[in-house]
Amino acid sequence: MCRAATGARSYAGFVVTWFERRPQSAEVARPKGRGVPQPSIKVDISSLTPELLHFLGQAAYAELGAFENLARAVSTAPTVSAKEGLSAAAARALAKHHGLSGEIRRRGSEPHIAMAPFVERLDHYRQQTQGADWHELLLSCYLTGGLLDDFFIRLSGGLPREVGARVAHLLGEDSGTGVLVTELQSAIVADPALGSRLAMWGRRLVGDTLLVARSAMPKCDQDAAPDSRIEPVFTELIAAHTRRMDDLGLTA
Amino acid sequence: MCRAATGARSYAGFVVTWFERRPQSAEVARPKGRGVPQPSIKVDISSLTPELLHFLGQAAYAELGAFENLARAVSTAPTVSAKEGLSAAAARALAKHHGLSGEIRRRGSEPHIAMAPFVERLDHYRQQTQGADWHELLLSCYLTGGLLDDFFIRLSGGLPREVGARVAHLLGEDSGTGVLVTELQSAIVADPALGSRLAMWGRRLVGDTLLVARSAMPKCDQDAAPDSRIEPVFTELIAAHTRRMDDLGLTA
Repeated sequence: MCRAATGARSYAGFVVTWFERRPQSAEVARPKGRGVPQPSIKVDISSLTPELLHFLGQAAYAELGAFENLARAVSTAPTVSAKEGLSAAAARALAKHHGLSGEIRRRGSEPHIAMAPFVERLDHYRQQTQGADWHELLLSCYLTGGLLDDFFIRLSGGLPREVGARVAHLLGEDSGTGVLVTELQSAIVADPALGSRLAMWGRRLVGDTLLVARSAMPKCDQDAAPDSRIEPVFTELIAAHTRRMDDLGLTA
Repeated sequence: MCRAATGARSYAGFVVTWFERRPQSAEVARPKGRGVPQPSIKVDISSLTPELLHFLGQAAYAELGAFENLARAVSTAPTVSAKEGLSAAAARALAKHHGLSGEIRRRGSEPHIAMAPFVERLDHYRQQTQGADWHELLLSCYLTGGLLDDFFIRLSGGLPREVGARVAHLLGEDSGTGVLVTELQSAIVADPALGSRLAMWGRRLVGDTLLVARSAMPKCDQDAAPDSRIEPVFTELIAAHTRRMDDLGLTA
């Protein structure tokens, strides 16, 4: 059985309490690679994708936040080697942000105007997910960055074809996060207590991030009736998240 | 009389106490543009330029520090518009850092190894020059970033021809600092007391930065005999600094 499917199931409780999940289908989504979800359940994603400028503003501000977290990790890195590696990851997050800003400008708007509606919520989210120390911050960069990239790539399938493809390509590019994995793996091996703490932190991060993702969808009041269209998307996101936790030797 | 020449003279006292300056020549250097110094006194710059990897490591770590300062300005920006503009400047500083890292790798070394000897001094310098609030940080980004770029461009004239030209081109590229000028100008116009405080801060910054620049030159013990080769370089740097202060309406 593939790890992704196992991981997706281990989060079933979380998803059930949220969406009052329908009886589980045998056709669980099996992402085959980061940023390239392969849903086996056909979902009309366009009904979940926000209007174009709304999407771009939100994704652009999320990438700017990912950059800010990575820049903070650069500044607080304990070694020059880690600083150097993280600076490359920061540059890639910034390139994604500027790519999205370019798409906003191409539509005659300004990035700061398109991003404005999302500042308060995403600033609050980022404050909640910064962690208490450098390793918690690294885990946050790795997990929340990955989850949000995956989420916006998935939603981009509902955008007008040309821009959707460009956005998916941009967000799917290598994030240079190998340095995060390397630093976290070696720290966890050296200190098992850190591993336990980071596993707990990872669970908190996925919860907070899925809440932000949920609120990014149009007409998705969290008190509203369950929506079977949303569930497969979240199942994919959680499966990819679980693979990231597995890579670090952490239980999702 | 051009402003640059006036500015260079207004710092004469500073230079005199440092280098026990020789009688002033009529041929004061007149920089015609940022990063393109036009010395009218011929200086054998190669005797002032450190060995190649030493130069690259030092310049790379200085650019990484410039990036870190800009990233901090992004994170603490009071408006989304300023955040967006500053993120572009941060990307450019990071691109300069990565360009220099590439030059280091091309010579078979690793950036973190080449940068290591400069970490302590430049971290201390950066800590001293971060300022007490966002506007002081912006001024520091603008003035110290500009001074250090100019300085390394000037020294690059003593590097082997091909790499020297590449480095000068890289460091001379637009730094995207227009946003710094705009933000500072409007804040100073709105609050003259801030202007006075920033003028004082600018003087402190140029002092600290010239000390760092001085220490970056080989065999330049500050207690050593005055060196007439160094003086024209510093005269140019100070003239360009004075123009930057002028642009903000501040007295250098």
